[in-house]
Amino acid sequence: MSARRPVVESPLSPLDPFGTGRSLDPKGGLPQPARRVDNDFSRLFPGELLVGVETLNVDAASFKQMEEAAGPGLSDAERDAAVVRQVEQTVRDRGKQHNPVTGSGGMLLGRVLQLAPGRTGDAAGEGDRIASLVSLSLTPLRIDRVKAVRRASAQIDVEGEAVLFASGAYAKLPSDLPERLALAVLDVAGAAPQVARLVARTLAEGGPRPRSVVVLGAGGKSGVLCAAEARRTGGDRVKVIGVERYAPFAEDLRGLGVCDAVAVADACDPIAVRRAVLEANGGEEADLVFSCVNVPDAEMSAVLVTRDRGTAYFFAMSTSFTKAALGAEGVGKDIDLMIGNGFAHQHAEHSLAMMRSFPAIRALFEKRYG
Amino acid sequence: MSARRPVVESPLSPLDPFGTGRSLDPKGGLPQPARRVDNDFSRLFPGELLVGVETLNVDAASFKQMEEAAGPGLSDAERDAAVVRQVEQTVRDRGKQHNPVTGSGGMLLGRVLQLAPGRTGDAAGEGDRIASLVSLSLTPLRIDRVKAVRRASAQIDVEGEAVLFASGAYAKLPSDLPERLALAVLDVAGAAPQVARLVARTLAEGGPRPRSVVVLGAGGKSGVLCAAEARRTGGDRVKVIGVERYAPFAEDLRGLGVCDAVAVADACDPIAVRRAVLEANGGEEADLVFSCVNVPDAEMSAVLVTRDRGTAYFFAMSTSFTKAALGAEGVGKDIDLMIGNGFAHQHAEHSLAMMRSFPAIRALFEKRYG
Repeated sequence: MSARRPVVESPLSPLDPFGTGRSLDPKGGLPQPARRVDNDFSRLFPGELLVGVETLNVDAASFKQMEEAAGPGLSDAERDAAVVRQVEQTVRDRGKQHNPVTGSGGMLLGRVLQLAPGRTGDAAGEGDRIASLVSLSLTPLRIDRVKAVRRASAQIDVEGEAVLFASGAYAKLPSDLPERLALAVLDVAGAAPQVARLVARTLAEGGPRPRSVVVLGAGGKSGVLCAAEARRTGGDRVKVIGVERYAPFAEDLRGLGVCDAVAVADACDPIAVRRAVLEANGGEEADLVFSCVNVPDAEMSAVLVTRDRGTAYFFAMSTSFTKAALGAEGVGKDIDLMIGNGFAHQHAEHSLAMMRSFPAIRALFEKRYG
Repeated sequence: MSARRPVVESPLSPLDPFGTGRSLDPKGGLPQPARRVDNDFSRLFPGELLVGVETLNVDAASFKQMEEAAGPGLSDAERDAAVVRQVEQTVRDRGKQHNPVTGSGGMLLGRVLQLAPGRTGDAAGEGDRIASLVSLSLTPLRIDRVKAVRRASAQIDVEGEAVLFASGAYAKLPSDLPERLALAVLDVAGAAPQVARLVARTLAEGGPRPRSVVVLGAGGKSGVLCAAEARRTGGDRVKVIGVERYAPFAEDLRGLGVCDAVAVADACDPIAVRRAVLEANGGEEADLVFSCVNVPDAEMSAVLVTRDRGTAYFFAMSTSFTKAALGAEGVGKDIDLMIGNGFAHQHAEHSLAMMRSFPAIRALFEKRYG
């Protein structure tokens, strides 16, 4: 099946950067919410990228759900086999690894087999190894053979094929970074580019006064990258304050030297966080607040430390839209509240390059996630 | 109890614009998540505003829940009485009308009895009628007597008192607008000021090219105000495209003359919305998209019609943080995603004044909501 495929006109060509031509149920819908997508790769549509799949990085929540659905009292091998059966069943039913219970997917690693015409700006060419940066929940996939299950990392090695649409982001895997490090960084690739933009914008607006940036959950993976990016973009015009609950992570963060102050506080206690930030920032609220705290009920900490007309940016999927909106309204905070968009142009390259620019962060991440 | 109250030092003064001194469980927390707040108004804390409460506008979801909890087969009077008992019980237990099942509150109407020192910028003085713009779920309240229940509008007329904190927004009720119209407008007061800001920002950035603004749910209350504000702020430099599912509302919107184009499409069908917007906008995506659609699964319509580096702003509480974030990532859209903040400086005055500047909108709203 690695022969070149003919490229045929899509049934819904004007809208097909999003892969609507592959949605079978409903026909012509978006592939993510679709109940079933077309995974017949004997022909491609314009703009598609065909991948020879090597590994599925299954979403952790999805993997856990499948393990639990397998039932209690199984040996490791039996549980792995049950997970594989569920994955194969899902892909047969839906044409994609879109867990019907959790709704989540994961991402894939593989090699580019073919680039159909109609693509622009590809970072990878045929034969290059890539990681998809769009969810498996919308990615047409065919599994020919399962080779291994690696439970600790929720990975499944397979032989198979998949298609990425023209709108589907991916990263070329760099040759100079270990794969596990690269994957750990790609997982949070959107964070640092957004920080760079917002810090640059706040510096461009409103004169020469010093600016302050707060990162909540600053000792975690995305938090460290946010703090480092705020420092790099803002230089000494920006005061960077990290807030981290877990003392060893706070210590790691201090060791990196990218923050002016690191406070140990729990983002679920907004009053404590506000006290710590005001203390570290001369009694002032911050211009920009990035919340990287992946637990519920952390919204108010961000809201309470953002200055009037400042911005609170939420990266974590645990964020509640209503808690942020009604929370800000309830305390009369006229601030911009932003939903973290995991995609930004060149975000993969940007974040991978940080591993080269910040050797201390690379060392920390290799120790933690390598 | 309408005698002047002594103002005493708050137990937690430096943080008390948010009313943490009134939180009893947990002590010193924020009053919104608090299980119980202090509703003893025999003394006030600095910055507080004491209101003589006349009417509770109970949140519609909360009112419905209490009606259902009353059980089936009741007369109207029995059901009203059961709702009143639940409200009285909640306020006795919690010191605020914070429905323990739905988590929601509502707002109140009343008259200012006393302004404690430590407040700035008050629009109302003692004796003025006001509407609170912060939720009852965080507002200390005492009910002395229930006078009437008006089920159709989920209102309860009471005698009682409440306190607004220094951070708690309210609006002085205008003498030249009918109360029902004023309340209908205050309910969505945050929308138009945010539109004015974002349209002004996009006009200031990036040169003289024409801009385009899409309003989803443009025929509804907040949608009409957003479309009108986009036209007013942007003038002929901005193309305003309204999308509305309900044909009579679309017709009303056309009649107002604030949109360049009005398309009838369902925001839950992102492919149809994208087709309609591209058609109305010369094949281009829009600079700014405001979603005023208060149903689930409308996120992707906004995402799919926002141009690269444009902004999608979500006003509706039905918006899912994860659907917006993962949706944009899934289709590789590098756009800003914003959580609608219901509070903005002067938002009540701004939106009420629109009823005077746009007589056709006032006439429409009086017909619909008056």
